[in-house]
Amino acid sequence: MDIYQKSLELHKKHQGKLATTGLVQIENKDDLAAWYTPGVAEPSRAIAKDPLLSFDLTLRGRTIAVISDGSAVLGLGNIGPEAGLPVMEGKSLLLKEFGDVDSFPLVINATDPSEIVQFVRHVAPTFAGILLEDIEAPKCFAVEEQLQNLGIPVFHDDQHGTAIVVSAALRNAAQVVGKPFESLNVVIVGAGAAGLAVARMLLGLNCSEDRCDRLPGSRAVGDVIVVDSKGALYSGRDDQNIYKQAVAGLSNKRRKSGSLLDVIQGADAVIGVSRPNSITKEMIQSMAEKPIVFAMANPIPEILPDEALLAGAFVVATGRSDFPNQINNVLAFPGIFRAVVKGRLQTITHEMKEAAAQTLAELVPNPTQESIIPDLFYPRLAEKISEAILSVD
Amino acid sequence: MDIYQKSLELHKKHQGKLATTGLVQIENKDDLAAWYTPGVAEPSRAIAKDPLLSFDLTLRGRTIAVISDGSAVLGLGNIGPEAGLPVMEGKSLLLKEFGDVDSFPLVINATDPSEIVQFVRHVAPTFAGILLEDIEAPKCFAVEEQLQNLGIPVFHDDQHGTAIVVSAALRNAAQVVGKPFESLNVVIVGAGAAGLAVARMLLGLNCSEDRCDRLPGSRAVGDVIVVDSKGALYSGRDDQNIYKQAVAGLSNKRRKSGSLLDVIQGADAVIGVSRPNSITKEMIQSMAEKPIVFAMANPIPEILPDEALLAGAFVVATGRSDFPNQINNVLAFPGIFRAVVKGRLQTITHEMKEAAAQTLAELVPNPTQESIIPDLFYPRLAEKISEAILSVD
Repeated sequence: MDIYQKSLELHKKHQGKLATTGLVQIENKDDLAAWYTPGVAEPSRAIAKDPLLSFDLTLRGRTIAVISDGSAVLGLGNIGPEAGLPVMEGKSLLLKEFGDVDSFPLVINATDPSEIVQFVRHVAPTFAGILLEDIEAPKCFAVEEQLQNLGIPVFHDDQHGTAIVVSAALRNAAQVVGKPFESLNVVIVGAGAAGLAVARMLLGLNCSEDRCDRLPGSRAVGDVIVVDSKGALYSGRDDQNIYKQAVAGLSNKRRKSGSLLDVIQGADAVIGVSRPNSITKEMIQSMAEKPIVFAMANPIPEILPDEALLAGAFVVATGRSDFPNQINNVLAFPGIFRAVVKGRLQTITHEMKEAAAQTLAELVPNPTQESIIPDLFYPRLAEKISEAILSVD
Repeated sequence: MDIYQKSLELHKKHQGKLATTGLVQIENKDDLAAWYTPGVAEPSRAIAKDPLLSFDLTLRGRTIAVISDGSAVLGLGNIGPEAGLPVMEGKSLLLKEFGDVDSFPLVINATDPSEIVQFVRHVAPTFAGILLEDIEAPKCFAVEEQLQNLGIPVFHDDQHGTAIVVSAALRNAAQVVGKPFESLNVVIVGAGAAGLAVARMLLGLNCSEDRCDRLPGSRAVGDVIVVDSKGALYSGRDDQNIYKQAVAGLSNKRRKSGSLLDVIQGADAVIGVSRPNSITKEMIQSMAEKPIVFAMANPIPEILPDEALLAGAFVVATGRSDFPNQINNVLAFPGIFRAVVKGRLQTITHEMKEAAAQTLAELVPNPTQESIIPDLFYPRLAEKISEAILSVD
């Protein structure tokens, strides 16, 4: 039985994988009076006076919402909310198992960005933070942007989770190939949620919709060129949405145009967050010496590790668990949301993401070709990332 | 320490009372591959083909949403979503403890009925049913009405849960006082969610917004007079919202007008779902022989049982656990939602509510003055109600 069939059987057997359970038992009228009426009027009255007490007196203070419209699920595309639920429920399970954080998945029958924004605003009083997930680009940018003033963090994992883990892996890969991180010329294949977010993070950019600024003091690579289905993004190119334009304005310094095959020449690293088989041996052969290749399309990467190595790649990473160097958001989001509930964060800043990436990189003190990133089961990983985030001023 | 202070301390100590937990553990890469990527793509693909499989392959099939805008919480009024959360979280705890049903509380920052409707529509793909709670009248009627075509049941407990339990208690009270249920003249004090719903149920009415019809074959009392703050509802009275008008048209057959004191004369039963101390001894003294008095305002009833008995009441019930005959929605909703998830119900029909009320009444085979309704901890109560509902054609 292959992994897909096995997964289907297991999901059927358990009817999913997340449950809600009482922290206490109701065994008699005294329990009922203390936990429900009439006693419960007192925590309600206290919160009515000071709504922030909802974090202390209810599940709110320890619970995250995992929200998706099902418009960009795994590599499956826009399969709708119901079909997205196994993934969001999985995300909730991972938050609990890896981060010891309670959460609940909410898949929603809303497609318009303003509807998603309104839904999140409506439900915010229930939660300590919002993990947005599998919402297609470019609407994911507008949605997240409009929710940054909620009073609780709203974090689109496909963007920032990916950017943090890639950034950590690239720091160690640079060390392995003996080039300064700050000198790297990086090509990113794919200009969706992950591609643009990785570009922003590697360039140390703070972006709001149509405008990006360099963050002073952030750790940035030498240059980035992002490639979409029409070729390299560059300042002034036609057919770029406002998010691509904003990144283009501060990347691709020489305004190179052309296809991936054209612009990958001489690059130090290529980061694929796009489609299976979109990176060829020929492309890798044209890169600078000791090429770094992150091929993260799932489950079939942009190029298989064996082929990439044959073509001269020096460090190869994928999203898969059956090859070395698995770059997976599970390395980051449980720790990030552990910090959110522990520190009652109101936003997740760029500095916090940098701290998470740096900590993740440092957990591999002596990186090698086959070990640039910690294992997903690294002991106390989420706690270490949480501590790093909470130590940011 | 009083019950309020005790409740506050307990809520602080446990940070609420509901948790989310994994049904399975993720201990190694094989677990991760089966429960998350890449395996999870298979249940997602299956659901994309047939969205109803979301009930079999995810938590949806066993999970209910408890949704409130916090506009009519307990006796506390419109205290807002955050302050409503302890009550909704409590409702979730009771669903689990009494009904073995998973649920999650969602308190929402939306006040307009159309916003609440839209929120519920958006979130519906995540759940097997929706328990609406503590939404003020009259908007609760419009909200529920507009959500009856969702494909999953939407049940406003303050209306139907109350109506079911009151109806069950009244059946047995009628037996105790030796009058046929069908002959009872009932006065209902309060024309909010509970009052109008009890009137509808006792009259066997099926209502949609501005119109009610008698359901053929339903078990109805002789007559009902509903009293609001302006006096008795009657057909053609001024100052009645459309929901009151609709009930007025099929109740108060003699079109009596006047205050509660005026219309309670000669009544067989009075059902208070209004404010503390709103029923007087004098009123009870004016009722027909062997008066039935349900005084359910919480925590301070319309009249205290001792006073009601002194005034001649023959059967007295309240919402409180420290007097005999506790009429509490906990008797009904866990069993109702157990039926929803067991039977994958799409709606909860009047016949199902009738079956629940009848079963609840029959669990007290020999009712007495001090025992007209089962104890909240009656063994397997939710299961019995669920079975009754699922046996309805």
